[in-house]
Amino acid sequence: MTTGTTSAAPQRSAEVDDLVARTRAFVREEVVPVEDRHDGDITAAGGDVLRRQLQARALELGLLAPHGPVEYGGHGLSMRERARVFEEAGYALFGAMAINAAAPDEGNMHLLDRIATPEQRERFLAPLVRAEARSAFAMTEPAPGAGSDPSALRTIAVRTPGGWRIEGQKVFITGADGADFFIIMARTSGEPGERGGGTMFLAPASSPGLRVGRHVPTMDRSMVGGHCEVSFDGLEVTANAVLGEVDEGFRYVQVRLGPARMTHVMRWLGAAVRAHETALDYALERRSMGARLTDQGLAQHLIAENEIDLAATRALLDVACTALDSGSPAAQETSIAKTFGAEAIGRVVDRSLQLCGGMGTSADLPIARIAREVRPFRVYDGPSEVHRFAIAKRAASAARRRVQG
Amino acid sequence: MTTGTTSAAPQRSAEVDDLVARTRAFVREEVVPVEDRHDGDITAAGGDVLRRQLQARALELGLLAPHGPVEYGGHGLSMRERARVFEEAGYALFGAMAINAAAPDEGNMHLLDRIATPEQRERFLAPLVRAEARSAFAMTEPAPGAGSDPSALRTIAVRTPGGWRIEGQKVFITGADGADFFIIMARTSGEPGERGGGTMFLAPASSPGLRVGRHVPTMDRSMVGGHCEVSFDGLEVTANAVLGEVDEGFRYVQVRLGPARMTHVMRWLGAAVRAHETALDYALERRSMGARLTDQGLAQHLIAENEIDLAATRALLDVACTALDSGSPAAQETSIAKTFGAEAIGRVVDRSLQLCGGMGTSADLPIARIAREVRPFRVYDGPSEVHRFAIAKRAASAARRRVQG
Amino acid sequence: MTTGTTSAAPQRSAEVDDLVARTRAFVREEVVPVEDRHDGDITAAGGDVLRRQLQARALELGLLAPHGPVEYGGHGLSMRERARVFEEAGYALFGAMAINAAAPDEGNMHLLDRIATPEQRERFLAPLVRAEARSAFAMTEPAPGAGSDPSALRTIAVRTPGGWRIEGQKVFITGADGADFFIIMARTSGEPGERGGGTMFLAPASSPGLRVGRHVPTMDRSMVGGHCEVSFDGLEVTANAVLGEVDEGFRYVQVRLGPARMTHVMRWLGAAVRAHETALDYALERRSMGARLTDQGLAQHLIAENEIDLAATRALLDVACTALDSGSPAAQETSIAKTFGAEAIGRVVDRSLQLCGGMGTSADLPIARIAREVRPFRVYDGPSEVHRFAIAKRAASAARRRVQG
Amino acid sequence: MTTGTTSAAPQRSAEVDDLVARTRAFVREEVVPVEDRHDGDITAAGGDVLRRQLQARALELGLLAPHGPVEYGGHGLSMRERARVFEEAGYALFGAMAINAAAPDEGNMHLLDRIATPEQRERFLAPLVRAEARSAFAMTEPAPGAGSDPSALRTIAVRTPGGWRIEGQKVFITGADGADFFIIMARTSGEPGERGGGTMFLAPASSPGLRVGRHVPTMDRSMVGGHCEVSFDGLEVTANAVLGEVDEGFRYVQVRLGPARMTHVMRWLGAAVRAHETALDYALERRSMGARLTDQGLAQHLIAENEIDLAATRALLDVACTALDSGSPAAQETSIAKTFGAEAIGRVVDRSLQLCGGMGTSADLPIARIAREVRPFRVYDGPSEVHRFAIAKRAASAARRRVQG
Repeated sequence: MTTGTTSAAPQRSAEVDDLVARTRAFVREEVVPVEDRHDGDITAAGGDVLRRQLQARALELGLLAPHGPVEYGGHGLSMRERARVFEEAGYALFGAMAINAAAPDEGNMHLLDRIATPEQRERFLAPLVRAEARSAFAMTEPAPGAGSDPSALRTIAVRTPGGWRIEGQKVFITGADGADFFIIMARTSGEPGERGGGTMFLAPASSPGLRVGRHVPTMDRSMVGGHCEVSFDGLEVTANAVLGEVDEGFRYVQVRLGPARMTHVMRWLGAAVRAHETALDYALERRSMGARLTDQGLAQHLIAENEIDLAATRALLDVACTALDSGSPAAQETSIAKTFGAEAIGRVVDRSLQLCGGMGTSADLPIARIAREVRPFRVYDGPSEVHRFAIAKRAASAARRRVQG
Repeated sequence: MTTGTTSAAPQRSAEVDDLVARTRAFVREEVVPVEDRHDGDITAAGGDVLRRQLQARALELGLLAPHGPVEYGGHGLSMRERARVFEEAGYALFGAMAINAAAPDEGNMHLLDRIATPEQRERFLAPLVRAEARSAFAMTEPAPGAGSDPSALRTIAVRTPGGWRIEGQKVFITGADGADFFIIMARTSGEPGERGGGTMFLAPASSPGLRVGRHVPTMDRSMVGGHCEVSFDGLEVTANAVLGEVDEGFRYVQVRLGPARMTHVMRWLGAAVRAHETALDYALERRSMGARLTDQGLAQHLIAENEIDLAATRALLDVACTALDSGSPAAQETSIAKTFGAEAIGRVVDRSLQLCGGMGTSADLPIARIAREVRPFRVYDGPSEVHRFAIAKRAASAARRRVQG
Repeated sequence: MTTGTTSAAPQRSAEVDDLVARTRAFVREEVVPVEDRHDGDITAAGGDVLRRQLQARALELGLLAPHGPVEYGGHGLSMRERARVFEEAGYALFGAMAINAAAPDEGNMHLLDRIATPEQRERFLAPLVRAEARSAFAMTEPAPGAGSDPSALRTIAVRTPGGWRIEGQKVFITGADGADFFIIMARTSGEPGERGGGTMFLAPASSPGLRVGRHVPTMDRSMVGGHCEVSFDGLEVTANAVLGEVDEGFRYVQVRLGPARMTHVMRWLGAAVRAHETALDYALERRSMGARLTDQGLAQHLIAENEIDLAATRALLDVACTALDSGSPAAQETSIAKTFGAEAIGRVVDRSLQLCGGMGTSADLPIARIAREVRPFRVYDGPSEVHRFAIAKRAASAARRRVQG
Repeated sequence: MTTGTTSAAPQRSAEVDDLVARTRAFVREEVVPVEDRHDGDITAAGGDVLRRQLQARALELGLLAPHGPVEYGGHGLSMRERARVFEEAGYALFGAMAINAAAPDEGNMHLLDRIATPEQRERFLAPLVRAEARSAFAMTEPAPGAGSDPSALRTIAVRTPGGWRIEGQKVFITGADGADFFIIMARTSGEPGERGGGTMFLAPASSPGLRVGRHVPTMDRSMVGGHCEVSFDGLEVTANAVLGEVDEGFRYVQVRLGPARMTHVMRWLGAAVRAHETALDYALERRSMGARLTDQGLAQHLIAENEIDLAATRALLDVACTALDSGSPAAQETSIAKTFGAEAIGRVVDRSLQLCGGMGTSADLPIARIAREVRPFRVYDGPSEVHRFAIAKRAASAARRRVQG
C-alpha cells in the first residue's frame, strides 16, 4: 500500500490493518494540508493550539496513542505493529504529533510504562497518553556535558531533607517550551565520565528553579516546543520524584533509547516515503529531452536507489522490532537499524529533491522541508559515528567469544 | 550464532535449528579445509570426484538437499528456512555443492518440482535431488542473443514428426561440463526481442547434436563443470522433452529466477560472513601504531559497515523469502534483495580484504579468493543495472496506480 | 593558506597573491560578521542596501570585480586566477556579492564582455562592472519549458516594425527583484525541442510588459533579488536590444555557462572551506569518550574525506580553468568539474555538520545555513544527472573516433 | 588523446609529447598482445626472459627509463612529465616493465639518484637505469614487524669490525626472486615502535646469508620476481653498503615513498584507462533491450562516473607532481592523490567490468585481470585507512596553526 513497493511484515491482524488504513487516511487528508499551508513550521501553524485541534480530531477518530497502554486509552501495539502505524503518521511532519506519537512524549510514555510507580503512572503517564499533557526529556547538556556520550553527565542532584536539589544546564531539550513536566537526568554519584551514578527525576514544569531558556535555532521547525536550553537552579523535588531506582538512570536511558530510536526511524521513514512519492509523481508528469523522466536511466537510478533504501530500512526496522518485542535489549539490531535508517532516509529525501530539480528546492513541494527536518536525525539519538563505534565493538566482542569457544 | 551479530528470523523450529547447526559444523570442519588446500579451485580440488565424496559424506550426515522434495530424500525447507541453512553452507566455497544445494542444480530442482510431469520428475528430478546426477540450465547466448535481456533469445526449436529439432549457441552455461542433463531454453515462436515464444526442453547430455565446448575462462573457479560454451547442432528431442507448456518458457524462467536469485544471495552471504569473520579474527590479533586494529576508528568504520551490510542483506532476504513462501512472485522484493545483496556482499568482502592488508591479498587467507568468486554475482541473474531499471519501472507503475485511484 | 591543506595552482603572480590575501582579510573580517548576524538571510540583512554598503567598502579597498574588464575598473583576472579570489570571497555567503562577483551578474559580465556591441558595453556592461547596476538572466521557464534542457524554450520573440515583441513566462530568475536590466532568452525561430532558434535580448527592468512576480520560496536565502517568476506580456524591444546575432542564443548560452559553472564551483568551494574549518575548530576543542574528537578514527574519517573532496574539487577546477583560459570551450572539463564539485561541496558541508553534532544543526554555527545554500547547486547550471548524461555521450563519441581512427 | 577525455596538463614540450606518443604506440602495439596472450601472468609469459626482450625493444626505440638520469641513458623527466608517459606505459600490465619504469626498480632509481655515493651510483644505479640489473626494496616484515607502520621495524643490523651484520625476516618483497641487489631497511638503533634508528643497506642478491623464500601467493600476477619472503641470516655487509647516513633510513623511506606512490598512481591509471576503453568499445557495440548500451541511462551513469574518476585522479596527480617538482615533500598532496587515486582506479575497473557483463568476468577481455592487479594498490604504499589517518592529522595541525595565528 505504501511506497516503496515492498513491506517488511505481511502477517498482521485485521485490527492493525484497519488502524494503519485509518491513520493513513487521516494523515493524508487532514494533516498534510495543514503542513503544506505552513511549510511544516509548527510555530507558524499554531504550535500547541494546532496540536490540540489535531489530537482532538484523532481522539474522535480513535487514532490516539497507538503505542499507549490500553488502560489509558492507547492501542497497546507491539513495536512491530506500531512500525506500520507510525510510518503512516510520519508521512506528514505533524502526523505523529496529531496521533500523540511524537518525540519526546512517545518515548517518555514507553519509559514511564516500564518503570513508573502506580502513583507516577496516574499523575504523569495517564494525562500524557490522553494528550492532556506534554513532556520533555532533559538529558543532553552543553559541552563538555552529556551528549553522544551520556556518561559525561554534569547536572547534579544532591539529597536534601525533603528529597533532592538539582543544579545544572541542559540544551537541545525537545518540546521543553510548553511541556507540562520534565524527566530529568542528573548525577547522584560518581564523576563525569563514569558509566553509573545517574538518576531520573520527574518534575512539573512549574517547579521553582526550573527555567526554560531560548530555543536553539536549529534547522528543523516541525517540533512543538522547540529544542530549548533549560536550567535547574536549585530545583527542589521530593523523594517520590525519583523515577525508578537511584543511580540506575543510565540503565533506564537504554530502556528508553532502543525503542525510541526505532520509533524515530518509523516516523522519518514515513517522511521519506512522502518525499519519494512526491518525486515519483513529479517524474511521471515531467518530460525532458523528449522523454518522460521515469523513462530516463539516470532518473531510474535515483528511483531504484530510493526503493532499495526504503525497503532495507523497513526490513532492518522489522528485525529490530521483532527482537525488542521478544524482550531482547536488541542493542546491535537497533544500532544498525538507526544508523542505516537515518542515513538511508537522508539519501531518499536528497534523491527525491534532486529528481524534482528546481521545484525540489522550493516550498511548492514538501521535499525541501522534509530534507531540513530529517537531517538532524543522523545526529540525535546517537550520531552515526558513535553507533558505528558501538557496532564495531560488539562485533569484535562477538568474534572474541567465537574464537574462544 | 553467525557473524554479523544479528539474524533476521528468530522464530524457527527446533528441527531447522538443528539442521543449521549440523550444516555449520560439517561445512566448517570438513569442507573448509578442502577449500583452503586448493585455494577454492574446484578443478585443482578434484571436480566431480571431490563433489561425490563430499556429497556422500553429507548424505551420511543427513544434510543433503535441504530444499529438495521430501519424497526424494530432501528436507523440503521453505525459502525462509533454507536461507539459514544455505548461508551456513555458503561459508565454504564448496559448501553448497557438498550438500547438493549449489547452482544450477538447486534452481533446476526448484523448477522441475513445480512444472515437471510425473515421468519427468522420476527421470530427472529424483536423481538430481539424490545427487546421482548433475544438470545445467542453458539460456544465456553469445551477443546479440539472450543475456540480461532473455527476450533476445535466438536458439530455435522447430517441430519435427517425432518432436523438436534445436539449433543454437549458448555460453556461460554453468556446470555444463559433466552435467547429466540440460534444461534448454529455445524459441518456438516469435522473434528475438519479443517477450513470448520461449519453450523449455529437457535433454540428456549424451544426446547427439548437443556439444559442450570450451570453458569460458572466468575469474571464479569454484563451480564444478565450469561456465561453458554449448552448441545445439540438429539436437533432436521427443515431444515429452518439453518442460511445461510450449511457448510458456519465459514465464517459467521467472518461476526459476526469483527463488534462484535468493538462494544465490543466501550462499554468497555465507561467503561474505567467512570473509568478515576472517577479518575480525585478524584485526583482533593485529596491532598497528600502538593499538589493536579493532580499537582503531578507521578499522572500526570498516567493521561496522560490514555488520550493517550483512544485517541488511539478511533482512531483505527474509522479506523476499517471506513473500515467496506466501506464494507471491515477489518480483520487486527479489530484485531489491538481489541487487542490494550482491553489492553489499561485494562490499563486505572488499572491506574484509582491506582490513587484512597485504595478507588479505594473498591466498594465505580465504578473502582474496572469495572476492574473486563473488564478483560475478553482480552480473549474473540480472546485473544490478537491469534490476535497478526493473525496480524503477515497478515503482513508477505503482505510483501511477496510486495517483489514479 | 586555505583549508584543505593543498592548493591546485602554486604558480601565480605576486599581484594575484596580494588580491587573494586582501580579499580573504576583507571577507573574514568584514563580511562574515554580517552573515553571522543574520543567519545568511540577505533579506533580513538588508538586501540591496547591504549590498551597496559592502560593495562601496570593496571599492574603497580595491577589491571590486576581480573578473571584470580593466577598462571599467575590474581586475581582468583569468579563470585560473579568479578561482583563488572567488574561493576566498565565497567563504562568506555574501562575500561574492560584496566584491561584485556574485551570480548572475558575474556571468552576465562575462557574456557581455564577449558579445555585446560597443554601445551595449557602455550602457549595460560598464555600470554592471562598477556595481552601479544589477542584472538578471532570464532563461529558465516553468515546465514544460526551458529547464535543464534549454531547447525546450517557449518564450517567443516576434519581429515588429521597430524591433521585437516578447511573450512568455520565466521562473527561478535569480536576482530579478531589483535588477536594473534583464538578458532574456527567447525563441525567434524553430519549435520547442529544437536546438536552434534562440536569441538573447537586453531589456531594462522598467520596460512596459516586463513584470517580476513572486519570489519562489526556495531553501536558500543568501541571494539578493531572490529567485523570481518573471513574465513578458507584450514586452517591446528595439532591434539593437539583440545581444549578439539573431538565432545564435543557444550558442551564447554555452559561452556563458561553461565559465559560470566554474565560478559557481569557486564560490561554493569557499563556503565548503568555511564549513570544514568550522568543523575542524569544533573538533579540536570537543572531547568525547575521553579523547579529543580530532583523535578519534571515525571523526578522522570525516575530516580526511573533506580534505580529499576539497583538493579534488580544486584540482578539477584548475584543469577546467586552464582549458578555458587556453580558449577551449572545455565542455567535458567544465561538466566534470561542475558535477564532481557540486557533489563534493555538498558532501563536505554535510560531513562538517555531522562532526559538530547538535551544534552543527543550529544557527549558532554557520554550517546548517551553508548546507541550505549549497544544496540547490546540484540542480542549477545543469543537474548532476544531465551532466553525467552529457559526459557519457562525449566519452562515447571520443571512443567511436578512437576506434575509427 | 587518452581516455577519459580530459587531461590535466596541456602545457608540455614537443619532446615529451613525442615520447608520450611513441610510448603509447609501443605499448599498444607490442606489449598489449603479449599480455593478452598470457592473461597478464608474467610467469606464464616468460618472466625475466620476456622482460629482457621487451626492454631490448624499448631501448631500440629510445623509450627506456623516462625517469632515469640522463647520464645513464634515461630521459630525466620531471614528475609531471613522467605522469603522462607512465600512464601510457601502464595501459599494458607489462608496459611499465617494458620501458624499465616498473616498481620497485623505478622507485629505487629515484632513491639512489638522490642519496647514493658516486661509487654506489656506478655500481648499482647505472646498471639499473640501463636495465642490466633488477632490484628489490626490502622493508615490509611479517606481523608484528614493519608494515603500514614502518616504525615497527624489527630487522636488526649490528656493527661488526668490517661493517654490519643483518638479521631479520621480510615478506611481500616485490621482485625479490631474480633481483640482482636489495635495498634493505634495518634497525641500527632504537626499539620497534620508535620513529628513528632505521638504516638502509645495499646488498647483492648473491650475498651469503640473504635468502629469497617462497612467493606469497597474492592475487596479482603481473610483477616479475613476485612478492617474496626474504630472510637475512647473518648477512654481512661492508661499511660502504650503507645507503645515505646511518639512522636516517626512515627519512629516506619518505624520500622514496612520496614519488613512488605517485608513479604507482600513474601506472595504474593507465590500466584503468584500458579497462574504461575496453568497456566503452563493448558498450558501443552491444545492444540490450532495443538500444545500444551507450544510449542507456544506467550504463551512462557508469561511463560518466568513470570519466569523472579518471579526470579527478589525473588532476590530483598533477597537483602532487607539481608540488614534488617544486621541491616540496608534498606529504598531504601525495597522500590525497594516492588515496583517491587507488580507490578511483579500483572503481573505474569495477564499473568497466560491470558494463561488460559476463564478458567482463572472463579472460576474453582484459578487465578481470586488471581488477585482480589493481586491487592490492589500495593496500600497499599505505592502505587508504592509514593515509586518511595521516591526512586528518595534518588537517588538524593546520587548523591548530590557523587558530593560533
